[in-house]
Amino acid sequence: MTDFYIETTKADKTLPINSRPKFFAFGIPSYTNLGDQAVSLAQRAYIEHEFPEFQYIEILEEDNDAGIEAVKKIITSQDIVSFVGGGNMGNLYLDHERARRKVFSTFVNNLTISFPQSIHFEDNEQGQREQKLSQEAYQKNPHLVLIARDAQSYHRMQTTFNNHVIFTPDMVLYFKAVDYSLKRSGALFVLRHDGEKVVKESLIGSIKQLLDNGRPLKKTDTVLDSVDRITPINREKLIVDELKLFSQQEIIITDRWHAMVFSVLTGTPCLLFGNSYGKGKHAYFDWLEHIDWIGYTDEEDLDRIDQQISKLIKTKKHAYDIRADFKQLDSLIKYHLEMSGRNI
Amino acid sequence: MTDFYIETTKADKTLPINSRPKFFAFGIPSYTNLGDQAVSLAQRAYIEHEFPEFQYIEILEEDNDAGIEAVKKIITSQDIVSFVGGGNMGNLYLDHERARRKVFSTFVNNLTISFPQSIHFEDNEQGQREQKLSQEAYQKNPHLVLIARDAQSYHRMQTTFNNHVIFTPDMVLYFKAVDYSLKRSGALFVLRHDGEKVVKESLIGSIKQLLDNGRPLKKTDTVLDSVDRITPINREKLIVDELKLFSQQEIIITDRWHAMVFSVLTGTPCLLFGNSYGKGKHAYFDWLEHIDWIGYTDEEDLDRIDQQISKLIKTKKHAYDIRADFKQLDSLIKYHLEMSGRNI
Repeated sequence: MTDFYIETTKADKTLPINSRPKFFAFGIPSYTNLGDQAVSLAQRAYIEHEFPEFQYIEILEEDNDAGIEAVKKIITSQDIVSFVGGGNMGNLYLDHERARRKVFSTFVNNLTISFPQSIHFEDNEQGQREQKLSQEAYQKNPHLVLIARDAQSYHRMQTTFNNHVIFTPDMVLYFKAVDYSLKRSGALFVLRHDGEKVVKESLIGSIKQLLDNGRPLKKTDTVLDSVDRITPINREKLIVDELKLFSQQEIIITDRWHAMVFSVLTGTPCLLFGNSYGKGKHAYFDWLEHIDWIGYTDEEDLDRIDQQISKLIKTKKHAYDIRADFKQLDSLIKYHLEMSGRNI
Repeated sequence: MTDFYIETTKADKTLPINSRPKFFAFGIPSYTNLGDQAVSLAQRAYIEHEFPEFQYIEILEEDNDAGIEAVKKIITSQDIVSFVGGGNMGNLYLDHERARRKVFSTFVNNLTISFPQSIHFEDNEQGQREQKLSQEAYQKNPHLVLIARDAQSYHRMQTTFNNHVIFTPDMVLYFKAVDYSLKRSGALFVLRHDGEKVVKESLIGSIKQLLDNGRPLKKTDTVLDSVDRITPINREKLIVDELKLFSQQEIIITDRWHAMVFSVLTGTPCLLFGNSYGKGKHAYFDWLEHIDWIGYTDEEDLDRIDQQISKLIKTKKHAYDIRADFKQLDSLIKYHLEMSGRNI
């Protein structure tokens, strides 16, 4: 039995039947990666704030098949279908890619939005096989619009797929900056433990020694092990807790793109290292290079890293505006509303 | 008396009156920057190959005022107006910016395309004043579409202007790769002499010493001093000469974005240094990082530069495909043709 999240305070068992246009959000995570959870929260905030005419309905990825069947029964041409954004289009996370293919190739008569993603099909036999399967599934849907969240992914999507591709930042950058006015002390290392990890443990050890001058040092990951499951009901509180944690640090050292995004939102100095295929690096150069308190590096020279960290810690906060970079998505949905007779 | 370049082999004094839709290309350079000349040639190639229904008419920037008056007399709703692409939107090259404003704010009832540009208004009083003048001029035209050629410029255009912004590479990357099968020998330094120059002469001197092991070393700029003037009549030959010159080098050392583009097209190893506001750097990371024989650096450490150059010189050529990245521009013009009843 599938739960739908029509409000974020409760899970419903049935889909609403009414005349409001629906925005069906497939692929919503129940796993404990706070970055991916923040993406799903930001998507909802974006649609509910910018296009309140839509009734926003979330379907967990674990309910993908049952959700597709239920949506099929009530969908009309004024409705929009979507699949969640993130950094998992490609062959590295096949569960997500398979769920995405099924949604895209099912609702071929509706505007279908693939929220901002980065993409990576490996250049090997398995990668090429999976890429072909995705190409076949995506091209069944003439109303599918892919959104790339960095220019490298924009190039890759345009050369891989025949679908229309637009270019916006990661949805989490839609959130406004927050200021909890908490006292800052210490350094937080936010590090991955997955196949995308490339930064060497020995380098992290040296950076710890560098920062260990009476300053508290902590280590965490944006993938939580303190809870078993995160859904639309409890995600916001956990994300706010994480933003408050970030707001108490002097510096974040990370190889997680969303740890950099949380640092942007909270005004926390942050140094980002690369992952296996450059998704954080490219998104940084595309959207965030002008924000003074965050930086990207591939450097292994400790003196240079030291200089960069010292500079970041001293940086003054300033205003920034990334909201305008969602204009291509705004236009897409506005155009859909105009075409379906609901002028805004 | 204004010359129009209705064909590139002759300059006409009068505009044609016929039923073909016209593509008016304003801002065409007559100065001797081969990068900017290549942009204007590439724009023409793009429209003539992809949308042959248009009659393409070039108007030199030096004839901007007279050209505007002449076009006003014959323009109809099926025609497209454009202003040339490049790296000069902003307050650093005010002659170009003023000509651009005048075109945009005049043809407010026609689809108006600002070909791929990078943008830089300085953060000082003069920069802000000029930015305001550009905002006032651009917003008069509801049919103006700006094209950014790198993600940094995409962000800046979207936060600066209310106009629609799309994202494609520099037009010169529309050209196919060329192979003149010439013998390669020596290193060519292609260096700017303008206000955007940031790479230190002492560093260039050291790189010369590094490469000076029996290898011929030459120095040039993509701004020619061997001719006084380049127009649509003589530009192609001069660009081909330049591509042949590049095709004879083992390595190009440059701070000119279009020298990197010529290196891409000719399969010539190339190391690009930055300019004053990152236009080459961003375009490199956005479109070209996957091309093995070119690289970007901000490095000042000679050992690291040496390693990077040695690696570039040894690189094998491979196929690449940047053509798909022009899809947003393709769609824009296709949509215009559909709307004006000329289905393709």
